[in-house]
Amino acid sequence: MGTLTRAGELFQIFRDGQARTRAELAEMTGLARSTVAARLDALTALGLIGPAGEALSSGGRPPSRVAFKPASAVILAADIGATHMLVGLTDLSGRLIDERRAGTDIAGGPEVVLDQMVELATQLLAASGRSSGELAGIGIGLPGPVEHSSGKPTNPPIMPGWDRFDVPGYIQGSFDTQVLVDNDVNIMALGERAAFWSEAQDLLFVKVATGIGSGVVCGGLLQRGADGTAGDLGHIRVPRGSGVFCRCGNEGCLEAIASGPAIARALSKAGLPAVDGEEVLSLVRAGNVQAIQAIRQAGRDVGDVLATCVSMLNPAVIVIGGSLAAAGEHLIAGVREVVYSRSLPLATSRLQIVQSRAAGEAGVLGASRMVSDHVLSAARIDAALNS
Amino acid sequence: MGTLTRAGELFQIFRDGQARTRAELAEMTGLARSTVAARLDALTALGLIGPAGEALSSGGRPPSRVAFKPASAVILAADIGATHMLVGLTDLSGRLIDERRAGTDIAGGPEVVLDQMVELATQLLAASGRSSGELAGIGIGLPGPVEHSSGKPTNPPIMPGWDRFDVPGYIQGSFDTQVLVDNDVNIMALGERAAFWSEAQDLLFVKVATGIGSGVVCGGLLQRGADGTAGDLGHIRVPRGSGVFCRCGNEGCLEAIASGPAIARALSKAGLPAVDGEEVLSLVRAGNVQAIQAIRQAGRDVGDVLATCVSMLNPAVIVIGGSLAAAGEHLIAGVREVVYSRSLPLATSRLQIVQSRAAGEAGVLGASRMVSDHVLSAARIDAALNS
Repeated sequence: MGTLTRAGELFQIFRDGQARTRAELAEMTGLARSTVAARLDALTALGLIGPAGEALSSGGRPPSRVAFKPASAVILAADIGATHMLVGLTDLSGRLIDERRAGTDIAGGPEVVLDQMVELATQLLAASGRSSGELAGIGIGLPGPVEHSSGKPTNPPIMPGWDRFDVPGYIQGSFDTQVLVDNDVNIMALGERAAFWSEAQDLLFVKVATGIGSGVVCGGLLQRGADGTAGDLGHIRVPRGSGVFCRCGNEGCLEAIASGPAIARALSKAGLPAVDGEEVLSLVRAGNVQAIQAIRQAGRDVGDVLATCVSMLNPAVIVIGGSLAAAGEHLIAGVREVVYSRSLPLATSRLQIVQSRAAGEAGVLGASRMVSDHVLSAARIDAALNS
Repeated sequence: MGTLTRAGELFQIFRDGQARTRAELAEMTGLARSTVAARLDALTALGLIGPAGEALSSGGRPPSRVAFKPASAVILAADIGATHMLVGLTDLSGRLIDERRAGTDIAGGPEVVLDQMVELATQLLAASGRSSGELAGIGIGLPGPVEHSSGKPTNPPIMPGWDRFDVPGYIQGSFDTQVLVDNDVNIMALGERAAFWSEAQDLLFVKVATGIGSGVVCGGLLQRGADGTAGDLGHIRVPRGSGVFCRCGNEGCLEAIASGPAIARALSKAGLPAVDGEEVLSLVRAGNVQAIQAIRQAGRDVGDVLATCVSMLNPAVIVIGGSLAAAGEHLIAGVREVVYSRSLPLATSRLQIVQSRAAGEAGVLGASRMVSDHVLSAARIDAALNS
C-alpha cells in the first residue's frame, strides 16, 4: 500500500505533458527504480499514462518513455453568462475538442438554463463520439456568487430563482459524474493561468464588462476568502465615483463608473448613441475620440483599485479580460498609467499588465481546469487506486 | 521505504498537541494498524513523539497514547527592530521558555547587531540549560524587506550596510543550524495566527507604528508575492494624503499621514508636545481630545485601504498591531468605522477586526513558527527519516 498511495504524487510530474523514462523519473524523485516501475504500473492501469515512444539510447535496447494520456477521459466545461452560454468538451489536459454556443436568459431560472446546457453537452458528446461514461467530471461557471464547496449560488443579484439551487444535484440527474461550480471570473482566472501563465504563482484576472470582478491567484492557488467573496473588485469605492450611486446601494463603486453600461450612460448624456458596452466598443472602433477617452478613463479608474492590489499582493501578472478589454490597448493603457505611477518600484519592476489571450474561451478552459485539478490531484488518484 | 516516507504526514496530526491512541490514528487516516505502528516508531526514534499516558479502556489492558514532544528541541527566535531587539527561546510548539530584550541601533550595521543577537541567544541557552546542539533552527525578523529564500535584506531603507548581507551565513558562524529570515510584519502575522487564530485561513496582520505594513495570510499560507513585497500597505495612496509627500518620494502615502511620526507632526503643528508615536500615545492616555481625534482619524485612513483589501481578499480576521494599536480602541474604532461602512455586507458579515493579542511578542512567536513550520513539515521529517 505504501507504494501505491504515492502514485498520485508521481503523476503530478506528468501534467506538463513531457514524456519521461523510468531512469529520468528515478533521478527526479529519488525513488528506487523498482518503486517507480510499480507506481507507473498503477497509473497505467488507471489509463492516465501510457507508452510514448522510445528515448535516445546510449547503447543497447533504447529505454521506453511514458507520458500523460489526456485523451483517456473527457471533461464538459460550461461558461454560463447572463445572455449566452458556451459549452466545451475538453480532454484531461484542457485541450478543447469541440464547443457549442447558444443564447440564453439567466433570469429564466436554473432548470431552463441547465436543461439547455445539458442539451448542448449531449450534442457535444455525440458529435465527438464519446460516451457519458468517459466523463471525468463537469465544470460550470455562473455569473454570480457561488458557494464552491456545495456548488450552490448564494444571493446572486442577476439570477432570480437560483439562490441556493443545487446545481450539481440537478446536473447529476442527467450525467452521473462529479459537478463543480464556481463564479465566472474565478474560472476565467484559472483558465487564463492554465493556458498562458502556468509559471505565475501570483496572478490577478480582472473582468471588465457589464460588471467588474476579479479572480485572485496567490501562491499558485485560486483564493476564495473566508466567505467566498474574494476578488469582488466592482464595489470598491474610487475617488472619481463620488456622488455616483451603484445598484448595490453604496456610493462611488468602481462598477458604477467604469463598467460597460456606466460608460455608455456617460457617453449617451454627451449625445452619443450608446446604450451598452457593445455600442461603446463600436464607437471606439469607429475612432470616436470621446469614446476612446471614456474607455481610457475607465482603465485609470480600474488602475486606481489595482494599484492597491499590487501593493498588497505583489502579483507577477495582471490579466485584463471581459468584453471591454476587446477595446484593445485603450483600456489597458489607462490601467498601466495609474498602476505604474502609483506603486512602489520593487512591486512593479517585473509586473506585466496584459490583455486576456484566452479571451472568450477563458471561462471554458478554466471550468475544465477546475475539474482536472480536482480529479487529477494526488489525493484523488491515490483514493482511486486504493478503492 | 513507502511506509517511512509518509511518517511526516502522520506527524502533522500531532501538531495540535492532542494525545492519541494507535486505534484513533488508524481511524483518522484509514491506514492499517501495523502501518500506523511502524510510522509512530519512526517518529519516536526522531524524538518528535512519545508516550502520553493511558487512554480509557473498554476492558483489558488500557491502550497507550502518544503525543507530540515539543521539548525535544528548541528554537531561537529574534525580533530585531530599528532601536530594540527581543530574542526568545521556544520549544517546537512555540511555547516561550525565556526571553532577553536589549536596545540596539539597526544603522550600526549587520555585524554589530547580529553579534548582539548571538550574545543574547548564548545567554538564553546557558540560562535554560540547553545546548546549541539541541537547536532545531533560528528564526529572525528584520525591519525591512528580505528575500526570504536567501535570508538577505534587499534595499532596506532604514538599514545602512544590510543590503544583500548574508544573515544566515553570518549567524551560522556561531550556531551550526538552519537560519530563516523574513521581515518583521510577516513574522508578526505568523505569530499572531499561530497563537490565537490557527483556525483562520485568511488573515491580515496590520502593524501601525513608525512605519505601516502588513502580513497577508491567504488560504492558510503567508503570501510574499512575486518579488517578496506583498503586504506593503504603507505606500498605498489615500484620499486624505493629497499634497502630503512621503519619504518614499511619492505623494499621499498612508504612512505619510497615519504613522506615529506623521500624527506627531500634525499634533506638534497644533502646538502639542509630540515628536514621535510614543508621545502621541502619552497624550492619548492623558485624555487629550486632539490626540484622540488624530488617532481615530489615522484609523479611518488605515480603514480606507483595508476596505479595498477586504473586498479583494475577504479575510476572516484583521489584526491591528504595532505600537499605535496600544492606544486601545481609538485606532481600531476608526478602522472599523470605514471598513464596515464601505465593504459589501457578505464580506463583512463575519469579519472580526481586533487588536493584537500577541502584542510585543508577536514577532518572536512568529519567528519561532517560521522555523517550526519548516523543520516539522512532512517533507523535512521524511527527509530526516530517509537520510
